[in-house]
Amino acid sequence: MIALEKYIRDIPDFPKPGVVFKDITPLLASPEAMDLCVQELLRLTEMQSIDKVVGIESRGFFFATLMAKELKAGFVPIRKPGKLPFETLKQPYTLEYGMDALEIHEDAIQKGDKVLLHDDVLATGGTAQAACKLIEKLGGEIVQCNFLIELEFLKGASKLQRYEHRALLTY
Amino acid sequence: MIALEKYIRDIPDFPKPGVVFKDITPLLASPEAMDLCVQELLRLTEMQSIDKVVGIESRGFFFATLMAKELKAGFVPIRKPGKLPFETLKQPYTLEYGMDALEIHEDAIQKGDKVLLHDDVLATGGTAQAACKLIEKLGGEIVQCNFLIELEFLKGASKLQRYEHRALLTY
Repeated sequence: MIALEKYIRDIPDFPKPGVVFKDITPLLASPEAMDLCVQELLRLTEMQSIDKVVGIESRGFFFATLMAKELKAGFVPIRKPGKLPFETLKQPYTLEYGMDALEIHEDAIQKGDKVLLHDDVLATGGTAQAACKLIEKLGGEIVQCNFLIELEFLKGASKLQRYEHRALLTY
Repeated sequence: MIALEKYIRDIPDFPKPGVVFKDITPLLASPEAMDLCVQELLRLTEMQSIDKVVGIESRGFFFATLMAKELKAGFVPIRKPGKLPFETLKQPYTLEYGMDALEIHEDAIQKGDKVLLHDDVLATGGTAQAACKLIEKLGGEIVQCNFLIELEFLKGASKLQRYEHRALLTY
Protein backbone atom coordinates (compact mmCIF):
# COMPACT_ATOMS: atom_id res chain seq x y z
CA MET A 1 0.00 0.00 0.00
CA ILE A 2 1.37 3.39 -1.01
CA ALA A 3 0.95 6.27 1.41
CA LEU A 4 -0.44 9.10 -0.71
CA GLU A 5 0.75 11.69 1.83
CA LYS A 6 4.32 10.94 0.73
CA TYR A 7 3.47 12.34 -2.70
CA ILE A 8 2.17 15.67 -1.42
CA ARG A 9 4.81 18.32 -0.93
CA ASP A 10 4.56 21.29 1.43
CA ILE A 11 5.63 24.57 -0.19
CA PRO A 12 6.04 27.31 2.44
CA ASP A 13 4.98 30.88 1.65
CA PHE A 14 3.04 30.05 -1.53
CA PRO A 15 1.08 31.75 -2.98
CA LYS A 16 1.83 34.35 -0.28
CA PRO A 17 3.87 34.63 2.92
CA GLY A 18 2.60 32.51 5.80
CA VAL A 19 0.64 30.05 3.65
CA VAL A 20 1.86 26.45 3.31
CA PHE A 21 0.72 25.17 -0.10
CA LYS A 22 -0.01 21.48 -0.63
CA ASP A 23 1.69 20.64 -3.94
CA ILE A 24 0.14 17.56 -5.57
CA THR A 25 2.41 17.48 -8.64
CA PRO A 26 4.61 14.67 -7.22
CA LEU A 27 1.44 12.59 -6.90
CA LEU A 28 0.41 13.40 -10.50
CA ALA A 29 3.86 12.37 -11.72
CA SER A 30 3.51 8.85 -10.30
CA PRO A 31 1.18 6.51 -12.23
CA GLU A 32 0.91 4.17 -9.23
CA ALA A 33 -0.02 6.99 -6.85
CA MET A 34 -2.50 8.43 -9.39
CA ASP A 35 -4.23 5.07 -9.78
CA LEU A 36 -4.48 4.58 -6.04
CA CYS A 37 -5.73 8.13 -5.55
CA VAL A 38 -8.53 7.67 -8.12
CA GLN A 39 -9.55 4.37 -6.52
CA GLU A 40 -9.62 5.93 -3.07
CA LEU A 41 -11.55 9.02 -4.22
CA LEU A 42 -14.10 6.71 -5.85
CA ARG A 43 -14.33 4.70 -2.63
CA LEU A 44 -15.43 7.91 -0.87
CA THR A 45 -18.39 8.15 -3.28
CA GLU A 46 -19.61 4.74 -2.06
CA MET A 47 -20.60 3.87 -5.61
CA GLN A 48 -23.60 6.15 -5.59
CA SER A 49 -25.14 6.69 -9.04
CA ILE A 50 -23.59 9.79 -10.65
CA ASP A 51 -24.60 11.53 -13.90
CA LYS A 52 -22.04 14.34 -13.91
CA VAL A 53 -18.70 14.90 -12.24
CA VAL A 54 -18.04 18.62 -11.91
CA GLY A 55 -14.42 19.77 -11.54
CA ILE A 56 -13.37 23.25 -10.42
CA GLU A 57 -10.67 25.06 -12.44
CA SER A 58 -7.86 24.10 -12.70
CA ARG A 59 -6.51 21.52 -10.27
CA GLY A 60 -9.98 20.07 -9.79
CA PHE A 61 -9.88 18.97 -13.42
CA PHE A 62 -7.16 16.34 -12.86
CA PHE A 63 -9.15 13.89 -10.77
CA ALA A 64 -12.63 14.96 -11.88
CA THR A 65 -11.99 13.71 -15.43
CA LEU A 66 -10.47 10.46 -14.14
CA MET A 67 -13.40 9.85 -11.78
CA ALA A 68 -15.92 10.68 -14.53
CA LYS A 69 -14.39 8.01 -16.72
CA GLU A 70 -14.56 5.34 -14.02
CA LEU A 71 -18.12 6.31 -13.03
CA LYS A 72 -19.23 6.41 -16.70
CA ALA A 73 -20.45 9.93 -15.98
CA GLY A 74 -20.11 13.14 -17.97
CA PHE A 75 -17.47 15.69 -16.98
CA VAL A 76 -18.37 19.36 -16.47
CA PRO A 77 -15.81 22.14 -15.89
CA ILE A 78 -16.57 25.11 -13.63
CA ARG A 79 -14.24 27.93 -14.58
CA LYS A 80 -13.17 31.47 -13.81
CA PRO A 81 -15.19 34.21 -15.57
CA GLY A 82 -14.69 34.63 -19.30
CA LYS A 83 -13.22 31.18 -19.95
CA LEU A 84 -16.34 29.22 -20.92
CA PRO A 85 -17.45 30.08 -24.46
CA PHE A 86 -21.18 29.23 -24.42
CA GLU A 87 -24.02 30.77 -22.38
CA THR A 88 -23.04 30.76 -18.72
CA LEU A 89 -24.36 31.25 -15.20
CA LYS A 90 -22.06 33.25 -12.93
CA GLN A 91 -21.75 32.99 -9.14
CA PRO A 92 -19.73 35.55 -7.19
CA TYR A 93 -18.05 34.58 -3.93
CA THR A 94 -16.05 36.29 -1.21
CA LEU A 95 -12.29 35.95 -0.87
CA GLU A 96 -10.23 36.91 2.18
CA TYR A 97 -9.76 40.29 0.48
CA GLY A 98 -12.28 41.09 -2.24
CA MET A 99 -14.48 39.06 -4.55
CA ASP A 100 -14.13 36.51 -7.32
CA ALA A 101 -16.62 34.48 -9.35
CA LEU A 102 -17.11 31.12 -11.04
CA GLU A 103 -19.06 30.21 -14.16
CA ILE A 104 -20.77 27.11 -15.52
CA HIS A 105 -22.33 26.49 -18.93
CA GLU A 106 -26.12 26.78 -18.75
CA ASP A 107 -26.55 23.46 -20.58
CA ALA A 108 -23.95 21.57 -18.53
CA ILE A 109 -26.36 20.09 -15.98
CA GLN A 110 -29.86 18.75 -16.67
CA LYS A 111 -32.63 19.04 -14.08
CA GLY A 112 -32.39 16.05 -11.73
CA ASP A 113 -28.80 15.15 -12.65
CA LYS A 114 -26.96 13.50 -9.78
CA VAL A 115 -23.73 15.46 -9.44
CA LEU A 116 -20.41 14.71 -7.79
CA LEU A 117 -18.48 17.93 -7.17
CA HIS A 118 -14.70 17.56 -6.98
CA ASP A 119 -11.83 19.89 -6.20
CA ASP A 120 -8.29 19.12 -5.13
CA VAL A 121 -8.38 21.13 -1.89
CA LEU A 122 -11.13 22.25 0.49
CA ALA A 123 -9.74 25.38 2.13
CA THR A 124 -12.12 28.16 3.24
CA GLY A 125 -14.92 26.60 1.19
CA GLY A 126 -15.83 29.72 -0.79
CA THR A 127 -15.25 28.24 -4.23
CA ALA A 128 -16.93 24.92 -3.41
CA GLN A 129 -19.96 26.74 -2.01
CA ALA A 130 -20.21 28.91 -5.15
CA ALA A 131 -19.88 25.79 -7.33
CA CYS A 132 -22.71 24.10 -5.40
CA LYS A 133 -24.95 27.12 -5.97
CA LEU A 134 -24.29 26.99 -9.73
CA ILE A 135 -25.08 23.27 -9.86
CA GLU A 136 -28.31 23.73 -7.90
CA LYS A 137 -29.43 26.72 -9.98
CA LEU A 138 -29.31 24.39 -12.99
CA GLY A 139 -31.42 21.79 -11.16
CA GLY A 140 -28.62 19.38 -10.30
CA GLU A 141 -28.71 17.31 -7.12
CA ILE A 142 -25.36 17.33 -5.30
CA VAL A 143 -24.63 13.79 -4.21
CA GLN A 144 -21.29 14.65 -2.65
CA CYS A 145 -18.61 17.34 -2.46
CA ASN A 146 -15.42 15.34 -2.89
CA PHE A 147 -11.89 16.57 -2.18
CA LEU A 148 -8.42 15.14 -2.31
CA ILE A 149 -7.32 17.31 0.63
CA GLU A 150 -9.22 19.11 3.39
CA LEU A 151 -7.41 21.82 5.37
CA GLU A 152 -9.57 21.42 8.47
CA PHE A 153 -8.16 24.44 10.30
CA LEU A 154 -9.70 26.70 7.60
CA LYS A 155 -13.18 25.38 8.47
CA GLY A 156 -14.42 25.14 4.88
CA ALA A 157 -16.83 22.39 5.91
CA SER A 158 -18.93 25.02 7.71
CA LYS A 159 -19.89 26.42 4.28
CA LEU A 160 -20.92 22.98 2.99
CA GLN A 161 -23.20 21.87 5.82
CA ARG A 162 -26.13 21.31 3.44
CA TYR A 163 -24.09 18.72 1.50
CA GLU A 164 -22.30 15.49 2.14
CA HIS A 165 -18.61 16.29 1.96
CA ARG A 166 -15.70 13.86 2.00
CA ALA A 167 -11.93 14.29 1.70
CA LEU A 168 -9.26 11.67 1.22
CA LEU A 169 -6.56 13.42 3.26
CA THR A 170 -7.00 15.92 6.08
CA TYR A 171 -4.49 18.33 7.54
CA MET B 1 -19.24 4.44 -34.27
CA ILE B 2 -19.80 7.89 -32.80
CA ALA B 3 -18.69 10.89 -34.86
CA LEU B 4 -16.71 13.03 -32.43
CA GLU B 5 -17.23 16.12 -34.59
CA LYS B 6 -20.89 16.11 -33.54
CA TYR B 7 -19.79 16.83 -29.98
CA ILE B 8 -17.73 19.89 -30.87
CA ARG B 9 -19.66 23.13 -30.97
CA ASP B 10 -18.70 26.23 -32.95
CA ILE B 11 -18.98 29.44 -30.91
CA PRO B 12 -18.69 32.49 -33.17
CA ASP B 13 -16.85 35.60 -31.96
CA PHE B 14 -15.20 33.94 -28.93
CA PRO B 15 -12.91 34.95 -27.31
CA LYS B 16 -13.00 37.95 -29.67
CA PRO B 17 -14.88 39.13 -32.79
CA GLY B 18 -14.08 37.14 -35.92
CA VAL B 19 -12.79 34.03 -34.13
CA VAL B 20 -14.82 30.80 -34.21
CA PHE B 21 -14.07 28.87 -31.02
CA LYS B 22 -14.23 25.08 -30.94
CA ASP B 23 -16.13 24.26 -27.74
CA ILE B 24 -15.37 20.73 -26.53
CA THR B 25 -17.64 20.81 -23.46
CA PRO B 26 -20.42 18.78 -25.18
CA LEU B 27 -17.81 16.07 -25.79
CA LEU B 28 -16.67 16.18 -22.14
CA ALA B 29 -20.29 15.84 -21.02
CA SER B 30 -20.76 12.53 -22.87
CA PRO B 31 -19.07 9.49 -21.28
CA GLU B 32 -19.31 7.55 -24.56
CA ALA B 33 -17.70 10.35 -26.58
CA MET B 34 -15.00 10.84 -23.91
CA ASP B 35 -14.11 7.14 -23.97
CA LEU B 36 -13.91 7.09 -27.74
CA CYS B 37 -11.87 10.27 -27.80
CA VAL B 38 -9.29 8.86 -25.35
CA GLN B 39 -9.05 5.63 -27.37
CA GLU B 40 -8.56 7.55 -30.61
CA LEU B 41 -5.98 9.92 -29.11
CA LEU B 42 -4.07 6.91 -27.82
CA ARG B 43 -4.26 5.31 -31.26
CA LEU B 44 -2.42 8.38 -32.61
CA THR B 45 0.46 7.63 -30.25
CA GLU B 46 0.88 4.20 -31.91
CA MET B 47 1.60 2.65 -28.51
CA GLN B 48 5.05 4.19 -28.28
CA SER B 49 6.63 3.92 -24.85
CA ILE B 50 5.81 7.06 -22.82
CA ASP B 51 7.17 8.10 -19.41
CA LYS B 52 5.34 11.40 -18.99
CA VAL B 53 2.24 12.93 -20.53
CA VAL B 54 2.46 16.71 -20.37
CA GLY B 55 -0.78 18.72 -20.55
CA ILE B 56 -0.98 22.46 -21.20
CA GLU B 57 -3.22 24.59 -18.93
CA SER B 58 -6.17 24.27 -18.76
CA ARG B 59 -8.05 22.41 -21.46
CA GLY B 60 -5.02 20.27 -22.19
CA PHE B 61 -5.41 18.78 -18.71
CA PHE B 62 -8.67 16.95 -19.55
CA PHE B 63 -7.28 14.38 -21.96
CA ALA B 64 -3.66 14.45 -20.79
CA THR B 65 -4.63 12.95 -17.41
CA LEU B 66 -6.85 10.34 -19.07
CA MET B 67 -4.09 9.36 -21.52
CA ALA B 68 -1.50 9.23 -18.74
CA LYS B 69 -3.65 6.74 -16.86
CA GLU B 70 -4.06 4.47 -19.88
CA LEU B 71 -0.36 4.70 -20.80
CA LYS B 72 0.69 4.07 -17.16
CA ALA B 73 2.72 7.27 -17.46
CA GLY B 74 3.11 10.19 -15.09
CA PHE B 75 1.15 13.39 -15.70
CA VAL B 76 2.89 16.78 -15.76
CA PRO B 77 1.07 20.14 -15.96
CA ILE B 78 2.53 23.10 -17.84
CA ARG B 79 0.93 26.26 -16.50
CA LYS B 80 0.72 30.02 -16.83
CA PRO B 81 3.30 31.97 -14.77
CA GLY B 82 2.84 32.03 -11.00
CA LYS B 83 0.59 28.97 -10.76
CA LEU B 84 3.15 26.24 -10.09
CA PRO B 85 4.39 26.37 -6.49
CA PHE B 86 7.81 24.66 -6.69
CA GLU B 87 10.98 25.72 -8.56
CA THR B 88 10.07 26.40 -12.20
CA LEU B 89 11.53 27.00 -15.63
CA LYS B 90 9.80 29.75 -17.59
CA GLN B 91 9.51 30.04 -21.39
CA PRO B 92 8.16 33.23 -22.99
CA TYR B 93 6.32 33.07 -26.33
CA THR B 94 4.83 35.55 -28.76
CA LEU B 95 1.10 36.17 -29.09
CA GLU B 96 -0.64 37.95 -31.95
CA TYR B 97 -0.32 41.11 -29.86
CA GLY B 98 2.28 40.94 -27.12
CA MET B 99 3.90 38.17 -25.10
CA ASP B 100 2.92 35.46 -22.66
CA ALA B 101 4.84 32.66 -20.93
CA LEU B 102 4.51 29.10 -19.67
CA GLU B 103 6.14 27.37 -16.71
CA ILE B 104 7.05 23.82 -15.77
CA HIS B 105 8.38 22.43 -12.50
CA GLU B 106 12.13 21.85 -12.70
CA ASP B 107 11.75 18.31 -11.32
CA ALA B 108 8.80 17.36 -13.54
CA ILE B 109 10.84 15.67 -16.28
CA GLN B 110 13.91 13.48 -15.84
CA LYS B 111 16.72 13.43 -18.41
CA GLY B 112 15.83 10.91 -21.10
CA ASP B 113 12.10 10.76 -20.23
CA LYS B 114 9.98 9.96 -23.28
CA VAL B 115 7.30 12.65 -23.31
CA LEU B 116 3.90 12.89 -24.98
CA LEU B 117 2.81 16.54 -25.17
CA HIS B 118 -0.96 17.09 -25.34
CA ASP B 119 -3.21 20.10 -25.78
CA ASP B 120 -6.81 20.31 -26.90
CA VAL B 121 -6.21 22.63 -29.86
CA LEU B 122 -3.23 23.36 -32.12
CA ALA B 123 -3.83 26.91 -33.35
CA THR B 124 -0.85 29.18 -34.12
CA GLY B 125 1.49 26.78 -32.33
CA GLY B 126 3.08 29.32 -29.99
CA THR B 127 2.10 27.59 -26.77
CA ALA B 128 2.97 24.11 -28.02
CA GLN B 129 6.37 25.32 -29.21
CA ALA B 130 7.08 26.97 -25.85
CA ALA B 131 6.00 23.77 -24.06
CA CYS B 132 8.39 21.72 -26.24
CA LYS B 133 11.26 24.04 -25.32
CA LEU B 134 10.54 23.59 -21.60
CA ILE B 135 10.44 19.81 -21.94
CA GLU B 136 13.70 19.74 -23.88
CA LYS B 137 15.46 22.11 -21.46
CA LEU B 138 14.76 19.51 -18.75
CA GLY B 139 16.23 16.74 -20.93
CA GLY B 140 12.96 15.18 -22.06
CA GLU B 141 12.60 13.55 -25.47
CA ILE B 142 9.37 14.59 -27.20
CA VAL B 143 7.85 11.47 -28.72
CA GLN B 144 4.82 13.28 -30.12
CA CYS B 145 2.85 16.53 -29.93
CA ASN B 146 -0.72 15.28 -29.69
CA PHE B 147 -3.86 17.39 -30.17
CA LEU B 148 -7.57 16.80 -30.19
CA ILE B 149 -8.09 19.51 -32.82
CA GLU B 150 -5.78 21.15 -35.36
CA LEU B 151 -6.87 24.43 -36.96
CA GLU B 152 -4.83 23.92 -40.12
CA PHE B 153 -5.46 27.40 -41.53
CA LEU B 154 -3.48 28.87 -38.60
CA LYS B 155 -0.40 26.89 -39.68
CA GLY B 156 0.70 25.93 -36.17
CA ALA B 157 2.42 22.84 -37.57
CA SER B 158 5.10 25.10 -39.06
CA LYS B 159 6.31 25.80 -35.50
CA LEU B 160 6.50 22.08 -34.66
CA GLN B 161 8.52 20.83 -37.63
CA ARG B 162 11.18 19.31 -35.38
CA TYR B 163 8.57 17.05 -33.76
CA GLU B 164 6.07 14.43 -34.76
CA HIS B 165 2.67 16.05 -34.43
CA ARG B 166 -0.73 14.40 -34.73
CA ALA B 167 -4.30 15.65 -34.32
CA LEU B 168 -7.52 13.69 -34.13
CA LEU B 169 -9.70 16.26 -35.90
CA THR B 170 -8.64 18.91 -38.40
CA TYR B 171 -10.51 22.01 -39.49
